[in-house]
Amino acid sequence: MTTSLDLTWLPALRAGLSSGCLHEDPETRERHSRDSAPFSPAGVPAVVVTPETVEQVQHVLRVAHSYGVPVVPQGARTGLAGAANADEGCIVLSLLRMNRILEIDPGNRLVRCEPGVTNRALSDAVAGHGLFFPPDPASWNDCTIGGNIAVGAGGLCCVKYGVTADYVLGLSVVTADGELVRMGRRTVKGVAGYDLTKLFVGSEGTLGVIVEATLSLRPAQPPSLAMLAQFPSATAAGEAVAAIIAAGHVPSALELMDQVTTAAVAALGHPMLTPDASATLIVECDGDDPSAELSAIAELCRTAGALNMAVAADQEQSKQVLDARRLVLPALQRHAATQPGRPTAFIEDVAVPRTRLAEFIDQIAAIAEKHDLYISTVGHAGDGNLHPTVVFDQSDPDAFQRAEQAYDAIMAAGLELGGTITGEHGVGILKREWLRRELDPAALRIQQAIKSLLDPKNILNPGKVLY
Amino acid sequence: MTTSLDLTWLPALRAGLSSGCLHEDPETRERHSRDSAPFSPAGVPAVVVTPETVEQVQHVLRVAHSYGVPVVPQGARTGLAGAANADEGCIVLSLLRMNRILEIDPGNRLVRCEPGVTNRALSDAVAGHGLFFPPDPASWNDCTIGGNIAVGAGGLCCVKYGVTADYVLGLSVVTADGELVRMGRRTVKGVAGYDLTKLFVGSEGTLGVIVEATLSLRPAQPPSLAMLAQFPSATAAGEAVAAIIAAGHVPSALELMDQVTTAAVAALGHPMLTPDASATLIVECDGDDPSAELSAIAELCRTAGALNMAVAADQEQSKQVLDARRLVLPALQRHAATQPGRPTAFIEDVAVPRTRLAEFIDQIAAIAEKHDLYISTVGHAGDGNLHPTVVFDQSDPDAFQRAEQAYDAIMAAGLELGGTITGEHGVGILKREWLRRELDPAALRIQQAIKSLLDPKNILNPGKVLY
Repeated sequence: MTTSLDLTWLPALRAGLSSGCLHEDPETRERHSRDSAPFSPAGVPAVVVTPETVEQVQHVLRVAHSYGVPVVPQGARTGLAGAANADEGCIVLSLLRMNRILEIDPGNRLVRCEPGVTNRALSDAVAGHGLFFPPDPASWNDCTIGGNIAVGAGGLCCVKYGVTADYVLGLSVVTADGELVRMGRRTVKGVAGYDLTKLFVGSEGTLGVIVEATLSLRPAQPPSLAMLAQFPSATAAGEAVAAIIAAGHVPSALELMDQVTTAAVAALGHPMLTPDASATLIVECDGDDPSAELSAIAELCRTAGALNMAVAADQEQSKQVLDARRLVLPALQRHAATQPGRPTAFIEDVAVPRTRLAEFIDQIAAIAEKHDLYISTVGHAGDGNLHPTVVFDQSDPDAFQRAEQAYDAIMAAGLELGGTITGEHGVGILKREWLRRELDPAALRIQQAIKSLLDPKNILNPGKVLY
Repeated sequence: MTTSLDLTWLPALRAGLSSGCLHEDPETRERHSRDSAPFSPAGVPAVVVTPETVEQVQHVLRVAHSYGVPVVPQGARTGLAGAANADEGCIVLSLLRMNRILEIDPGNRLVRCEPGVTNRALSDAVAGHGLFFPPDPASWNDCTIGGNIAVGAGGLCCVKYGVTADYVLGLSVVTADGELVRMGRRTVKGVAGYDLTKLFVGSEGTLGVIVEATLSLRPAQPPSLAMLAQFPSATAAGEAVAAIIAAGHVPSALELMDQVTTAAVAALGHPMLTPDASATLIVECDGDDPSAELSAIAELCRTAGALNMAVAADQEQSKQVLDARRLVLPALQRHAATQPGRPTAFIEDVAVPRTRLAEFIDQIAAIAEKHDLYISTVGHAGDGNLHPTVVFDQSDPDAFQRAEQAYDAIMAAGLELGGTITGEHGVGILKREWLRRELDPAALRIQQAIKSLLDPKNILNPGKVLY
């Protein structure tokens, strides 16, 4: 297909890049065609550029703007909504080589870095100064800070410490026409002008390319302890969550696994789990006295009808409790491996008001039954943010169709409960249609107008988020 | 002056409002001409509208848009940057009567309210449900939530709990042409589309009129204890602040008073203060064991060279410690009362990176000396956010000029130290010129373009923030 593409812009692009930054070979181009989302269309880029400097990013945008070539920014491509999927014949701008940590300032609890540094590398580097960057998406080992900011990533400890947006103080962004714009600040507080920084957080590369970030940090996370409790129904688990919140506790993680997930993890041999419980809660506390806090929470779980509990008394037991949560993905992979055809797992991301959690879980179970699908639901109960995961045989057209129908039904149920179509994975291509159903039409029009204002030629990750 | 105004729009405005909402008498108009900022020009509005419904706000905007009449939204007019100052002949839209709390949802820790509810009324109402709305500007008794959001207000406990922006989940806004737009969400997490909500926070009524807000809340603040420590130099106090932060403490207040402020409060007879200390730190902790935390912090203050300390052992002593901070304004008022002419206090608001605090204080003292002025500096040391306050005789043209020169010098010094021209008071009219000096010109252009996009006729609080 690429032979028919207009590549008149390629000489101009080449002129400003060293050869090591510009990749035209089919294998590299193919490898950069998509992120980790299923169900979403992707093309093959005409070229992949791996810049090492801001000037190179500016050059790419200037050429792209001048010739009207789409530019798709990419990080580690761990995203789950297709936001980093290439357009056929586009320029993929992979920022992985811009991975320097430029400054760690312990006195002001901040770090300044390039977008390609991984969440893990950043976390490790600041840990050396007794500091902590809380957002901890499941892909934290590989995903980049630029990607985290672009998508507004979350994680387990967000229930206590907030999401990526809460930690972005300032950004440097290259706009659609190649201009470098610095926004935000280095101070803890500041209200000078409109908050452009937060407008770019979560904009998924559609408004500009993030080339530098100034992030605030917290003191190192104190030692934590964890417990788990199992319940005879999602409702009982939801009541426990409500009671924990109502009592004013702020756990550092408050995770829920439904019956399917519980059974899958128990099948891996986790010693603390009763496989047929309808729901499992995992609670981690890192306050001054986590043991006392867990005792109080255990009492609330008991009142809510917990069948069994395991409250860690030391770090080793705590690790064992938290392993139940960590084993979810391996457990689903093992389940998938036993299935016929080409099984795949499709991870959803819907958030509902915390008080509607149990209802939502029961509705998802009903959707699974109706569409004859295996759906494992796990998520951040403290945030009301669930990840129903459909495991199905993608080589079976009927299963594929049922999975899509279930996906639609889950999203509709989430909105009906007062929720949002995405808590932390973003919109990308996957949820563009659903974004229109969630947003007030007037708000959607303003979003589209802002996109047109900042990217009048629609070259920045076109068709993502809005279309 | 108003006689020469074009009032052709008045019949159209009247047509959609009950008479109790529309005020044309000179006294009411005069009373709504300005907020609490000095140094900033203000006109007299042609009318004051006090709507009780969203529909009335929409009506006002539709008429104003159609005829091109400026609309200046106002809350309690406690602002300190002139953001609520009227334009000559404008429509003032006072939102004080839209003051209903629409919903308190303890299970989801959120509140939904109209813009005219006061910070105090909201705080009291949610306290009844064991909940806490942290932003606590000095004017919290009178200022409105709509004003807090419009300006991005802060306060004392922001050092631990964050600023207003951190608590705004969703907004309903009436745009320049009278359309109602709902943005944001009710869930804890959410990344569906661009974050319009945060764009409107801090936009000071220049992008739309806030008519409803959904705010997140925290569990009730736990009991706290406070201490104070006095130092022989601002540098020593700055070192204590740095040591407290470096040790990972997160106090619920970390306030600093310079030598002038210390002397003024001591002159009111506060028993714990040595009047000639160069700096006083006040630290409040509300963790699980505030007493232990204060002991650790006291040790750090001692190492930094504290001359004397008072560490509260109970609530009564704690209150006495915190009184030192509360007495700052009365102390300055008393000082002003002893001065000749028409003395006034001009409260500044600059934030610098926390580590530059001591330098900034010393520079402010030098500026006071150079311009022969009384400048008392107090502020949120934990945030690097200081409020230098110039007390001067406004009837003395020379003093007035020196105060203006000092104001400029303080702002320049703050920017030079890597700071921002406003930590929590906003830009209004007062700092428009300085906003241009702080912002990257490319970021300023984007801000101007967003303003033009959302308010093409420039009727929404024209000339505020940007011009």
